[in-house]
Order: sequence, then C-alpha cells, then structure tokens
Amino acid sequence: MQFGRCYEEFEVGALYKHWPGRTITESDDMLFCMLTMNHNPLHIDANYTENTQFKQPLVAGPLVFSIALGMSVGDVSGKAIANLEFEYVRHLGPTFHGDTIYAETKVLDKKLSTSKPDRGVVTVETIAYNQRGETVLSFKRRVMVPTKAHDAVRLRAREEKIAAARVKR
Amino acid sequence: MQFGRCYEEFEVGALYKHWPGRTITESDDMLFCMLTMNHNPLHIDANYTENTQFKQPLVAGPLVFSIALGMSVGDVSGKAIANLEFEYVRHLGPTFHGDTIYAETKVLDKKLSTSKPDRGVVTVETIAYNQRGETVLSFKRRVMVPTKAHDAVRLRAREEKIAAARVKR
Repeated sequence: MQFGRCYEEFEVGALYKHWPGRTITESDDMLFCMLTMNHNPLHIDANYTENTQFKQPLVAGPLVFSIALGMSVGDVSGKAIANLEFEYVRHLGPTFHGDTIYAETKVLDKKLSTSKPDRGVVTVETIAYNQRGETVLSFKRRVMVPTKAHDAVRLRAREEKIAAARVKR
Repeated sequence: MQFGRCYEEFEVGALYKHWPGRTITESDDMLFCMLTMNHNPLHIDANYTENTQFKQPLVAGPLVFSIALGMSVGDVSGKAIANLEFEYVRHLGPTFHGDTIYAETKVLDKKLSTSKPDRGVVTVETIAYNQRGETVLSFKRRVMVPTKAHDAVRLRAREEKIAAARVKR
C-alpha cells in the first residue's frame, strides 16, 4: 500500500481523489467540540439553533477541516518531514449531522530545497464536498517532503532497527 | 457569564487572553487522529518518530489549531452568525504530548455590513503558546457577528419560546 508521496512523485497539476469518504455523525461533532473546548451553541445546542439560519446544528468547521486533511494524508503528506502552513482555509457551505464528506487534492507547485537537496516543498489545494455535490471547504497548504533517496535511507534505518531488535530476542 | 461578543463590543487593537489553558495528552492526540482519519506516523507511531527530527510524536497540527480556536470562542465567536474563513494557519513550533497550550486573540479590524446593518465582520488573529513561552501556532480569521440590537432580538425569541413551553406544562 502506498502511503504518502516522495518529492519526485508529486506532479504539478495532478489531482488525487481521496478514498474513502466519511459520514460525520452527531456523536462525532459533539465529541470533537468537547475535546477541543469549542462550546459555540451553533454546534452543541440544538434548541438554540432552531432560531438560526439553518434551524439545526452545524458541524464545527475545524472538524470538517481536520477530516478533509486526514483524508489527504495517505495521498499527500504521509511521508512528510513537516507540515508548514495553510495559506487559507475557507468554509464554503454548511455541514450538517449525517452529511458525508469526500475530499480531493490538486498539486499546485513544487520546489526542491536549495539548502537541503534531500527534500522539497509541495503546495497543494484540498477541497471537501458532500453527498449533494456541494463544496463545503477548501484549503491550500505547504508540506515539506523527502526525496526518494532520503525516504529510502529512513526506511532502511527503521527496518534495520526492527531487524536488530528481533535478532536479540 | 459573558459568552461571545456583539459587534459593538469588539475594539480594534484589543487583546483577549483566553482562559483556561489545556494540557494536550497522548490520549487526546491519538483519539483526535483516529476521529479525523489522520494516520500520519508522525502522530501515531512512536517507534517511527525515534528516527525523526524531534525523536518523539508530534501532536497533530489540526488538534492544536482546533483547541486554540475552541479556547477563543468564549471571547470572540460565541455569538457568531457565521465563521467565514481563515486567512492563514501557521505552525510555528512543535507541540509534544504533555505540553500545555494557552491562547490569546487580537482584534485587527471590524466592518459593519452595508447590506444588513444588524451584523458586521470582525477580523482577529489568534496565537497559541506553550508552558515554555514558545509560540506554536497563529491564525487569522473573519467572523460575522450580530449587533447588540440583533442579539437582543435573538435572546428574546429564545426566552419567549422556553417560557411558552414551560407555561404549557
């Protein structure tokens, strides 16, 4: 199974459709809000939301964002050395309890490091959309990833460590 | 208890120090990663991280971000009509299991809506820092909040609804 990508494996213009999607349940959202101290009644008070624009609770934006990002790890940042920054995170539509979110990522740019040629920075945009085809979120981020040669060295070090530990047994 | 702010209550240049802080445990981080499908080994494989720059797991960036945002709700967006966008989210330093995060928010700008004068858009920057005084995250966001008059109408509607329900009993 491929998990993440090395610098050479990113092609500017490529589109990665992440799989699988994720239905965001009421339970997910309540747990997330409590875990992150987000007590906005828009997310946790169903009675309050009856008097708001959508007349029902909205899934907390950071949960939609975090899931879309999580979905992209296997295709984008699973081998990352560092996640540098998000240039923007835009909420483009509401997510309600029971909605299913899918995500896809486009490669916008890549640049090999001049000071450390064993790594490079990749710029991608990820969008999340729901079962009704509505785009609900987009974000642009920069990730530092290893070259194939660097990744191979890391992999060999991990394998040798495990092998040595097993020999000792 | 004050929870959130109306448009008139934001003053450009004001700094809100959020309270309390939050120690991010290993358990928090693992739960968060599973909940958001974020299987990056930097967060969930302690053995893998022994060969990385910090030689230990990093708390997932979206968890630090989500907690800092959650901390700001009581001072900033607790009365929000909508959370519009994040202009940037920057990871400025690592967060490790057991680190304690604090956050504060500065008001950068405010603008009353011209089409709907019962609301306005406030721009704020939030930073998160740890027990060592290191800034670990910053983000800038735009939030749509009600005026005092609009908020009073919403509050009266909620109170009348509850009162009517209680009379029926």
